Amino acid sequence: MTIQRVAIIGLGLLGGSIGLAVKEHLPEVATAGWDRDPATRVRAAERGLVGTVCETGTEAVAGSDLVVFCVPVGAIGAVAADLAAAIPADAVISDVGSSKLSVAKALAEALPGHCVIPAHPVAGTERSGPDAGFASLFHNRWCIITPPEGVDADKLAALSAFWEGLGAKVELMDPQHHDLVLAVTSHLPHLIAYTIVGTASDLEGVTQSEVIKYSAGGFRDFTRIAASDPTMWRDVFLTNKDAVLEMLQRFSEDLTALQRAIRWGDGDTLFELFTRTRDIRRSIIEQGQDDARPDFGRSDHAG
Amino acid sequence: MTIQRVAIIGLGLLGGSIGLAVKEHLPEVATAGWDRDPATRVRAAERGLVGTVCETGTEAVAGSDLVVFCVPVGAIGAVAADLAAAIPADAVISDVGSSKLSVAKALAEALPGHCVIPAHPVAGTERSGPDAGFASLFHNRWCIITPPEGVDADKLAALSAFWEGLGAKVELMDPQHHDLVLAVTSHLPHLIAYTIVGTASDLEGVTQSEVIKYSAGGFRDFTRIAASDPTMWRDVFLTNKDAVLEMLQRFSEDLTALQRAIRWGDGDTLFELFTRTRDIRRSIIEQGQDDARPDFGRSDHAG
Repeated sequence: MTIQRVAIIGLGLLGGSIGLAVKEHLPEVATAGWDRDPATRVRAAERGLVGTVCETGTEAVAGSDLVVFCVPVGAIGAVAADLAAAIPADAVISDVGSSKLSVAKALAEALPGHCVIPAHPVAGTERSGPDAGFASLFHNRWCIITPPEGVDADKLAALSAFWEGLGAKVELMDPQHHDLVLAVTSHLPHLIAYTIVGTASDLEGVTQSEVIKYSAGGFRDFTRIAASDPTMWRDVFLTNKDAVLEMLQRFSEDLTALQRAIRWGDGDTLFELFTRTRDIRRSIIEQGQDDARPDFGRSDHAG
Repeated sequence: MTIQRVAIIGLGLLGGSIGLAVKEHLPEVATAGWDRDPATRVRAAERGLVGTVCETGTEAVAGSDLVVFCVPVGAIGAVAADLAAAIPADAVISDVGSSKLSVAKALAEALPGHCVIPAHPVAGTERSGPDAGFASLFHNRWCIITPPEGVDADKLAALSAFWEGLGAKVELMDPQHHDLVLAVTSHLPHLIAYTIVGTASDLEGVTQSEVIKYSAGGFRDFTRIAASDPTMWRDVFLTNKDAVLEMLQRFSEDLTALQRAIRWGDGDTLFELFTRTRDIRRSIIEQGQDDARPDFGRSDHAG
């Protein structure tokens, strides 16, 4: 099987980027898209995010051999159920959601006879909506595919080839393990960033204006992540509850240990950790997963 | 008073950047520098971080009208005491440390007869050492000066003009208030980043290799901050203990509230916070304190 026509349901950052990446890298593949928000459909058409912006989801999925749901994970089940009758029987059903156990369950329930292969491209920015997408979003990023047991090997190969065609590197993973790994590499960092930005906004001894002025001391990095789409992230935490709570518990224990070290003036404990954490940064840069330039290259633009 | 000769004690990221910025923006001002590490002195001379790299601190401070200590805050008192006899009586004594109450006390004790005016340019990167500095580090960044009561107005004006000459914007602040503001905009973010990177390295269910591979989900942002200089940051936490512990307590309470919201499936609480945190990001960008490009502009370099 080779994918020839893709339906993209939801035309925000991820859906839009898939459409643009297909146009750039797989021009022989046709794309049709739909978004429930009429204003997003208008903007998607103006930007040419997909070949055809449809007025209904039913039109978008008609004749497609791959349907990718790019809506918040909490909404996937209902949106898929609405389109169940219109989706071709042999189409591959996939998504881009950040939690995978719950999505696998929701899609299997909504589309019982279909071949459901959930996926998660680990890529994104803090922007959302139809203006946020761009064709290179998936370049050199990992796309984790979590195939169910007994998956159709041809269809899995076609989905993998599709993501590789968009510039991504594909990894297969058990959905439960995916949810644990992403809880630490993505969900916990977002939760912490949202928390500290909230904490900083609610102080009585320090004004919001001071927090903004002196944010270059480190705080501003957290505000970028904490500007991410609220609906998407609410759904991630609600659908990956167990893994997030486990990671949060470990983080809180570790933070308490550091708090104790600070209170008791135990500089050795602090120094030991602060030294150890440098190595991970080095590996991330070596593996092309972040910019090597200091301060994310911001300083190049200073002034 | 106009500053004509600056002694820079410590030639790492901050000391080196001051030297380079003086050369670029205030070429009429002479600079002399010293670092206790001989290898750093060699590299500082090769890069031309200061006009004269001296073999001793005593030589560096001789004849200077401004001495800036650019060493970890825990070391400032001892380094200043060593040089006390050599520092000209009418020189302004300052620093670049991230905590100010303890530095003010240490410098006042080490140099009793001198005019001590502590300062903190809120600028930096995750790099350290003599190769890390660059001339534009202070462009459009705030430099907080915490003058003691009864400060010599002429000397304060000269120090302010010096920092403005390097491209910074100057703000005067009470040292205690400085320490509280920076605890939230800089110290707490660093502590949290160090913690989460430590937590992620110590999991048994998720390998370090997985953490690195999928770090683009948000984790990689924290690794940049957690790659900062361990000695500097150990000293910051030990010297700004009270304010850091207060902010940490508030952060932990807020995190516990979110943990509870996740456990009980309270999406409204999550959504409300996640919406509120977007505004601060917007203000930081409007005030020129961060890059407006999505993902810090990383995506421009994707591929």
